[in-house]
Amino acid sequence: MKQVDEQVEARHRAKMANRKSIQDAEVAEKTLEKGLLLVHTGSGKGKSTAAFGLALRMLGNNRRVGIVQFIKGAWSTGEQPALAVFGDRVVWHTMGEGFTWETQDLKRDIAAAERAWQKAVDLMQDETIALVVLDELNIALRYDYLDIDAVITTLQARRPDLHVVVTGRNAKPALLEAADLVTEMTLVKHHFKAGVKAQAGIEF
Amino acid sequence: MKQVDEQVEARHRAKMANRKSIQDAEVAEKTLEKGLLLVHTGSGKGKSTAAFGLALRMLGNNRRVGIVQFIKGAWSTGEQPALAVFGDRVVWHTMGEGFTWETQDLKRDIAAAERAWQKAVDLMQDETIALVVLDELNIALRYDYLDIDAVITTLQARRPDLHVVVTGRNAKPALLEAADLVTEMTLVKHHFKAGVKAQAGIEF
Repeated sequence: MKQVDEQVEARHRAKMANRKSIQDAEVAEKTLEKGLLLVHTGSGKGKSTAAFGLALRMLGNNRRVGIVQFIKGAWSTGEQPALAVFGDRVVWHTMGEGFTWETQDLKRDIAAAERAWQKAVDLMQDETIALVVLDELNIALRYDYLDIDAVITTLQARRPDLHVVVTGRNAKPALLEAADLVTEMTLVKHHFKAGVKAQAGIEF
Repeated sequence: MKQVDEQVEARHRAKMANRKSIQDAEVAEKTLEKGLLLVHTGSGKGKSTAAFGLALRMLGNNRRVGIVQFIKGAWSTGEQPALAVFGDRVVWHTMGEGFTWETQDLKRDIAAAERAWQKAVDLMQDETIALVVLDELNIALRYDYLDIDAVITTLQARRPDLHVVVTGRNAKPALLEAADLVTEMTLVKHHFKAGVKAQAGIEF
């Protein structure tokens, strides 16, 4: 075990006491409870994954969760079987006929986005649901498959205790403006060591 | 439904076809499978949440997951009961006597970090486990409760197919250097609408 002298320890104690008092004050001033509109954007990893992590947390609090997938095939195979463990506490709409890079059919993509959005509206009106995940909605908005003003109006008209998480890169400014919490996931390093050399200006 | 003229549709089709060919090429060149060292850092939300999302995905693939919590009380109450649904496929070590802002005792904090790290080492040696989450390890490293070189040497010596996720703000440069994938979660906006005014330079 590391040796620690008394002076170091005293400084540490003072620093941590200060830190704790700041944290306690921060906690004390946050008394408002309301449903939040969260946005996970940026080009890095973890936008959808963190949204699923929130869903998991909500399920751990014995609440129900609704999920709409706006892009077909955007997920790995793991989430759906994992969340299936929670039975009907997860309501899940994958747009099986939905928007996908595999088709290049704009009318069909718009129709799929509109169907997905209708599922989202239904979930938001279900008072048994505490959290709605709108996975990759930002993609549908970016391509103007859905009207941004109509989407934001609906999000803002949701019941006060409902949490909504919107994911996807290139979130529109109007959505960021409407959000309570925006997190940008930034790719700092993505380095497959064998065969791929780190590129100056790209990876460091 | 939105009206789409044929020219717009043709442009869209060409753009999406191009996009698809790029994506297909990217997928084709990534043939290497190896266990990754992932780091979630930055001052934004979602670092631990995304790590739990990865755990969920791994569980959905019928794999086992190990989790070590390096800070007592860092988690909300939701994750643990939610993951309990998966039974012994999740091996969980919360450092109940561990590092916390509530104490200001450096020797005790170092001892707790060392105990937590030993649990991490044990989990990494368990060949039934596919993913190890080292939640808030970066805090223990930042305060030099653990020796960074020893930690990195152990991480690098892990078996080739084991994935490890390290979370926490202020990741050390040496850890970023050793990592395969680093994501920085950045707080873009954190605006509690009632009572808290957005601050120039802070929130926009």
